[in-house]
Amino acid sequence: MALNAIGEVDMNSTIATIMRHRSVRHFTEQAIEADKLEQILNCALAASTSSFIQCTSIIRVSKPALRQQLAEYAGGQGYVASAAEFLVFCADFNRHQQIHPEAQLGFTEQTLIGAIDTALMGQNALLAAQSLGLGGVFIGGIRNNPQQVTALLGLPEHVLPLFGICIGYPAREPQSKPHLPLSIVVHQDQYQQLDRSALAEYDQHIREYYAARSSNTKQTSWSEHVKAALSKESRPFMKEYLNGQGFSLK
Amino acid sequence: MALNAIGEVDMNSTIATIMRHRSVRHFTEQAIEADKLEQILNCALAASTSSFIQCTSIIRVSKPALRQQLAEYAGGQGYVASAAEFLVFCADFNRHQQIHPEAQLGFTEQTLIGAIDTALMGQNALLAAQSLGLGGVFIGGIRNNPQQVTALLGLPEHVLPLFGICIGYPAREPQSKPHLPLSIVVHQDQYQQLDRSALAEYDQHIREYYAARSSNTKQTSWSEHVKAALSKESRPFMKEYLNGQGFSLK
Repeated sequence: MALNAIGEVDMNSTIATIMRHRSVRHFTEQAIEADKLEQILNCALAASTSSFIQCTSIIRVSKPALRQQLAEYAGGQGYVASAAEFLVFCADFNRHQQIHPEAQLGFTEQTLIGAIDTALMGQNALLAAQSLGLGGVFIGGIRNNPQQVTALLGLPEHVLPLFGICIGYPAREPQSKPHLPLSIVVHQDQYQQLDRSALAEYDQHIREYYAARSSNTKQTSWSEHVKAALSKESRPFMKEYLNGQGFSLK
Repeated sequence: MALNAIGEVDMNSTIATIMRHRSVRHFTEQAIEADKLEQILNCALAASTSSFIQCTSIIRVSKPALRQQLAEYAGGQGYVASAAEFLVFCADFNRHQQIHPEAQLGFTEQTLIGAIDTALMGQNALLAAQSLGLGGVFIGGIRNNPQQVTALLGLPEHVLPLFGICIGYPAREPQSKPHLPLSIVVHQDQYQQLDRSALAEYDQHIREYYAARSSNTKQTSWSEHVKAALSKESRPFMKEYLNGQGFSLK
């Protein structure tokens, strides 16, 4: 990478916004200005859409009672209730069914399109928020209790709540957790087996990160984290829930 | 929104990058500088990862023969072969299985995590590219022939190719297609039925866009597009393919 005069990596401000991403979970009580929220939402809508299908809905949840309930459904994540804004991003083919009652729905492919396109929108929203001095965090925890979230927000068939995003003014600057290096994630032309020496180096890096961080220190490597996380079931109710909402039936 | 001195919406450069997104399908022959490619890939890796699972692999495809084959598999999209770079973004739990052979895999929830987290990385990559004067387009068409793509790139079980991204220096500045308005996509506190008058207005907007654009003009509204697109099956082989790769089995 190019280095600037004082020896730092020279990056443009979009790349700087992307690279300085931290999941922010502690917010001040300051509200988000209406024009900033509108910019964030417009950025979400500017993402690519597969075959111009536009299959995303965003539920902006403002009522405190709904927020409190969602915080509990998400596993007791208090910032879901307290963040200035909480947006629930959903794959939505109900809109298409309203337009075309005979629409062919329920395909697994549509679940993929919905998840991918909705995530593109979510990332745009989060980056736009960061660029405005705000911070945020994705809340996959709404998938802990998808039936209850669905009932609470009145989501009809063919609408699938995928994740929430908390947004607000950061009260703290969290530390950055080192991600897997390019040498492990990027493959050239063909899938390559995991490079065990690169993994060992990364494991050591993570072990040092966890030992040194300012709070919640622990003694673990990424490999150990993976072993613990994948030794248990992963939301085993999800298939049945998706089918019940009219997704991934065929 | 705030207006600047000459009456334009005042936006920071990250938001400007997001808002000026166009899918670029025509590229010059100029290669992408190594430091720019590295910045793009590092931006991809900076995205959030659900529960620190890091379940994405990126296959950078450079060999012309592989590119040509992928262009055909994607439905004859020549820019897959000719773009300076083509990156295939995959959900990857094979890496975890290599680390932990007893990993519990095959959950539908893991397909969702894989699709969402991989898409966050893809959007970062595309925006970083745009900010560097490059352009790109998502290629969902690699899901037209997933078995063949899997064989070509040597993808093992628990790896799911989700989309490709072509990146290069734009040879043309494409027009922007108007997306659904906030009033249709954003719901307040509860899911709201489609506002038919807002839809009619948007349909008219799209009809005018298609009639006026510089090439490939047509007479159609978004509602008509939806009816045509959803009157046919949506990659009906996808469920069986996913299951065969070890995804969405339970």
